[in-house]
Amino acid sequence: MSERQSGNPAGEIEALAAMFGRWLDGYRAGVSAMPVRSQVRPGEVVGKLPQAAPETGFRDGDAAAGWAEVLRDLDEIVVPGLTHWQHPRFFGYFPANASVPAMMGELVSAGLGVQGMLWLTSPACTEIETRVLDWLREMLGLPECFDSRNGLGGGVIQGTASEATLTAMVAARDRVRRWRKKVGIGERGEYVVYASGQAHSSVLKAAMIAGIADGPQDAVHVRMIDVDGAFAMRRESLAAAMREDLAAGRVPCFVCSSVGTTGTTAVDPTDKIAATIGEVCGAEGDGVPVWLHVDAAHAGSACVAPEFRWMLRGVERADSFCFNPHKWLLTNFDCDCFYLRDRRPLIDAMSVTPEYLRNTPSDSGEVIDYRDWQVPLGRRFRALKLWFVIRAYGVSGLREHVRRTVGLAALFESLVRADGRFEIVAPRVVNLVCFRLKGSDGANQSLMERLNATGRVFLSHTMLASPPAASDARYTIRVAVGTPTTSEADIRELWARVLETALEPAL
Amino acid sequence: MSERQSGNPAGEIEALAAMFGRWLDGYRAGVSAMPVRSQVRPGEVVGKLPQAAPETGFRDGDAAAGWAEVLRDLDEIVVPGLTHWQHPRFFGYFPANASVPAMMGELVSAGLGVQGMLWLTSPACTEIETRVLDWLREMLGLPECFDSRNGLGGGVIQGTASEATLTAMVAARDRVRRWRKKVGIGERGEYVVYASGQAHSSVLKAAMIAGIADGPQDAVHVRMIDVDGAFAMRRESLAAAMREDLAAGRVPCFVCSSVGTTGTTAVDPTDKIAATIGEVCGAEGDGVPVWLHVDAAHAGSACVAPEFRWMLRGVERADSFCFNPHKWLLTNFDCDCFYLRDRRPLIDAMSVTPEYLRNTPSDSGEVIDYRDWQVPLGRRFRALKLWFVIRAYGVSGLREHVRRTVGLAALFESLVRADGRFEIVAPRVVNLVCFRLKGSDGANQSLMERLNATGRVFLSHTMLASPPAASDARYTIRVAVGTPTTSEADIRELWARVLETALEPAL
Repeated sequence: MSERQSGNPAGEIEALAAMFGRWLDGYRAGVSAMPVRSQVRPGEVVGKLPQAAPETGFRDGDAAAGWAEVLRDLDEIVVPGLTHWQHPRFFGYFPANASVPAMMGELVSAGLGVQGMLWLTSPACTEIETRVLDWLREMLGLPECFDSRNGLGGGVIQGTASEATLTAMVAARDRVRRWRKKVGIGERGEYVVYASGQAHSSVLKAAMIAGIADGPQDAVHVRMIDVDGAFAMRRESLAAAMREDLAAGRVPCFVCSSVGTTGTTAVDPTDKIAATIGEVCGAEGDGVPVWLHVDAAHAGSACVAPEFRWMLRGVERADSFCFNPHKWLLTNFDCDCFYLRDRRPLIDAMSVTPEYLRNTPSDSGEVIDYRDWQVPLGRRFRALKLWFVIRAYGVSGLREHVRRTVGLAALFESLVRADGRFEIVAPRVVNLVCFRLKGSDGANQSLMERLNATGRVFLSHTMLASPPAASDARYTIRVAVGTPTTSEADIRELWARVLETALEPAL
Repeated sequence: MSERQSGNPAGEIEALAAMFGRWLDGYRAGVSAMPVRSQVRPGEVVGKLPQAAPETGFRDGDAAAGWAEVLRDLDEIVVPGLTHWQHPRFFGYFPANASVPAMMGELVSAGLGVQGMLWLTSPACTEIETRVLDWLREMLGLPECFDSRNGLGGGVIQGTASEATLTAMVAARDRVRRWRKKVGIGERGEYVVYASGQAHSSVLKAAMIAGIADGPQDAVHVRMIDVDGAFAMRRESLAAAMREDLAAGRVPCFVCSSVGTTGTTAVDPTDKIAATIGEVCGAEGDGVPVWLHVDAAHAGSACVAPEFRWMLRGVERADSFCFNPHKWLLTNFDCDCFYLRDRRPLIDAMSVTPEYLRNTPSDSGEVIDYRDWQVPLGRRFRALKLWFVIRAYGVSGLREHVRRTVGLAALFESLVRADGRFEIVAPRVVNLVCFRLKGSDGANQSLMERLNATGRVFLSHTMLASPPAASDARYTIRVAVGTPTTSEADIRELWARVLETALEPAL
C-alpha cells in the first residue's frame, strides 16, 4: 500500500502519540512549579506567531525537525500563555478535571474520526453513550425515570451545561406553545423563565438565545427569584412571581433549580419548587406544563457518594437534569450529561429531517438519533472518554476522589473559621469555600488580586449579600478544591499565602 | 513526589498514548478491508456492555490487564459498531477528515485541559485561535474585513456550522430588534429568515431554537426560496418573498447564502443576494439591517485553491461567514471557523457578565473573551489542532489535498457521463457527484441500499427535482470524495460496484 493509500507512514500515530505523551508527562510533572495564572500581557502570545500560514508544511520534508519545532513552541509560546487548570493550586471557578484515561478516550475518538449524528452513522457511538449514561444515572442515584431502559427517559452528552439549559428551555417553550394551541389560546405569547438570583448566567443567556428575553436586562421574562440565608431559592418568592405573571397574561414555561450554584454551591429545594409549580400553575396534565430543569453542573458529580444525594431531593419530579463530568469527575471538557424523563418534547422541538439524513433504522423508530437531542447536527464520540474513566477508576475511585477533595475543602474552611480576622460568607455544601477578610471590599479584592499575582495559587471571586436579601453584596473570595493532584500541603500553602498576603500593606 | 501529588505514574501518558497510537495505526492500516457501513443491528452493541458500571476500577489494581481489556473491547465491541468515516471508500454525506496532526492537537488539548472562556483563563488559547483564524482568512482569500487585525472583524472556532448559523441568527434578530426600538416601531415583531430550498436543515433548526419559527413546518417565518437550474438561490424569488413579508408587516432579519449546499454543493450568488437585500430592505445604515450569513460549511475549504474562489463572490458584503475544517481540511471534528465583519452585534446578543467572570483584562477591553462569541460558556483549546494541521501540511499541502480529491470526483463524474444508462442530476461544483440510474426512484433507492449493504462502499442520497422548480423530485445518489486515503483505484472500484449492482435484479 502506497503512502497515499495508507494515509500515514507505518507507526506514525504511535511515534507521535508517544512523543506528545512524553511531553504531557513532563508538563504534568512540572506544572506545580509554574505560576498558576499566566503571566503574559495581552498580545504577547500572538506577537510570537507568524503573521501568515507557512506555504510549505514539514510533513513532506523533514517531519522530525518540524515536530521538534512544534514541541519547542509548546514550551516557549503555549505553556507561558496558559492559566493552568490542572495545577494542584488552581482553586478558581470550578475544577476542570482532565485525567489520563479521559485523554486516551479523546485520542481514540479523534483517531476513529466518526460522526454520531445518526445511529446509522456509527451505531457504537450512540449505543455506548446511551449505556454509559445509564451507568452514571445509577451511580448518582438518579431516579429510574431518567434511564433509557425505562420507557421514554434517557441521557445524552452535551458539550456544556449551557447547551443543556438551552436545549431544555427550547423544549419547554415549544411544549407550552403546543399546549396553548391545543387549549386554543394562541401559540405565541410572552414566555417567562425562572431561576434563583444565584443561578448560572447560562439561564439568562439561553433565554436571550431562545428569544424569550429581550436582552440581559430583561427582568420581565427572566425572573431572578430571591434566595434564603443559604443562597437557595425561596419557594414563596417563586410562587409570587408566577402568580404575578399569570395574572399579567404572561406564560411561565421553564424553572431552573440550581443544585450547586456557581457563586456558593447553594442547593435549591427541587422538591419544594416542583410542589410550587403544581400549586400555582396546575397539576400535571391539567395546568400550564411548566418545565422543571435541574442544573447540577458542578455539584452533581458529588452524588457518586451517597452522603451527598440529599441534594437531589425532588429530582424525580423534574423534566430534565444535567451535570458535568468535565468539571469534577475526571473527564476532560467537553462532557455534560443531560437526562430527560420524556425525550419526546425535546425531539419535537429539535427534529428537522432533510432527505439526505433519512435512513431505514431511523424510520423504524428502533434507534436513537442523538442529533435530535441537541443544538448541533454533528457530534463526536465523547462517550469513549467517559467509558474509559469509569472503567479505570471504578465507582469507588470516583467516590474517593470526590470525598478526598471535599475533605480538603473542609480543611480549608476549618483554617478560615479558626481565625477571627476572616469570615465564612456562605455554607460550604461540598468542595467550595466562600470566605472574606473582615474588612472592605477593596481590601478583599486587593487580597485576591495579590494572591493571584504571586502565581502560587489561583482564586476567583463573587459578590454576596449577607443576608442574601440585603442590598449590600460584598466581595467574597471563592476557593474550589477539586483537582486530583491537590494535596493537604497545597491547602496549607494556600492558607499561609492568604495570611501572609493579608498582612502585607494593601496596594 | 507521591503518586497522589503527581496524579499519574511517571511515563504513564507516554506509555498509554503509544499503546493507543499503535492501536490506531493498526485501525487506519486495516480500515480499508472493513465493511464501510457498520453491519450491527440495533441493540447489538449495547447488548455487549455490562448493565452497570464497575464498582472497582483497574487503575489501582492490574492496570495493564485493565487496559488490555479496553483494547479488546475496542476491537470486539467498538470497531464492528462503527461506520468508518475514515475509510477510503466512504463517500457518504461529506467527508470528516481526521489527520494525524489534528489527532495530536486534540491529544495535547485534552492533556493541558485548559478552559478558553475568557482571555484570562488561558491567554494562549484565545490568541492562538485569533491568529490561526486570520491565517485561514488569508488562505481562503476571504476579504480583510473578516481579519482580527482589521478593526472590528475576526474569527472564532465554533463546534459546528449549525452553531455558527444559530449564533449569527441570534445576533441578526437582536440587531433588528434594537433597530426597531431605535426607530420606534416596537421591539417585538414577527421575524423572517431566508435561505434557498436547498440550504442545510440547520437554518430551519436555528430559527426554531431562536424562537423565530414555530416549528419545522413554519413556512411563514422561514422562507425557503426557489432555486435555479444549478440549484442556487434565485434572486427574484428572494426579492419577491421579502417584499411580501414587508408588506405584511413581518420583519426580514437574516438571509443565509449557501456556498455549497448539502444536496448538490450548489453555490448561491452572494453578490446578487446582497444587492437584493439592499434594493428591497434599504441601503446600509438606512433600511432594515438584514444580516447576510454565508454558510460555506463544506465547500469553503476548497478556496485554499484560488480556482475555487469564484464561489466567494460577494462575500465582502456579508456580515458573517463560516466553513468547517472538520469536513474537508484534515482537522478532526469539531472545528467550524466563523468570521464576523463586526463583532459588536454578536457580543451585544450573547454577553452576560456575572460577577465571578469579571476580571481586569476583560474590563480593559484590550482582549477577546470568546465566551461572548458562542452559545456555551466553556471552550476547549481547539486552535491547537488547526495550528498543527496547517504547519504540518502547509498551505500547499492542503491545496493539493483539495485538488486531488476534486480530481477524483471529476473522474467519477466522467465515468458516469460515459454511460448512457446513468445521468448526472446536478452540476459538479467541487467534489460531490449527484447521479442516478435512468429509471424509477425505487430502482435508485434499491441500487444505493444494495451498494451500502455490500460494505465495500458507502453512499448517501437526496431528492432532487430537475428542473428544480418542478414538483417531481427524484431519488439521487450522492458521491462525496474527500478522504485523504481515497485513490483512483477506489473510484474505479466504486464505479465497478455501481455497474455490477445496477445490473443485478432489483430486490
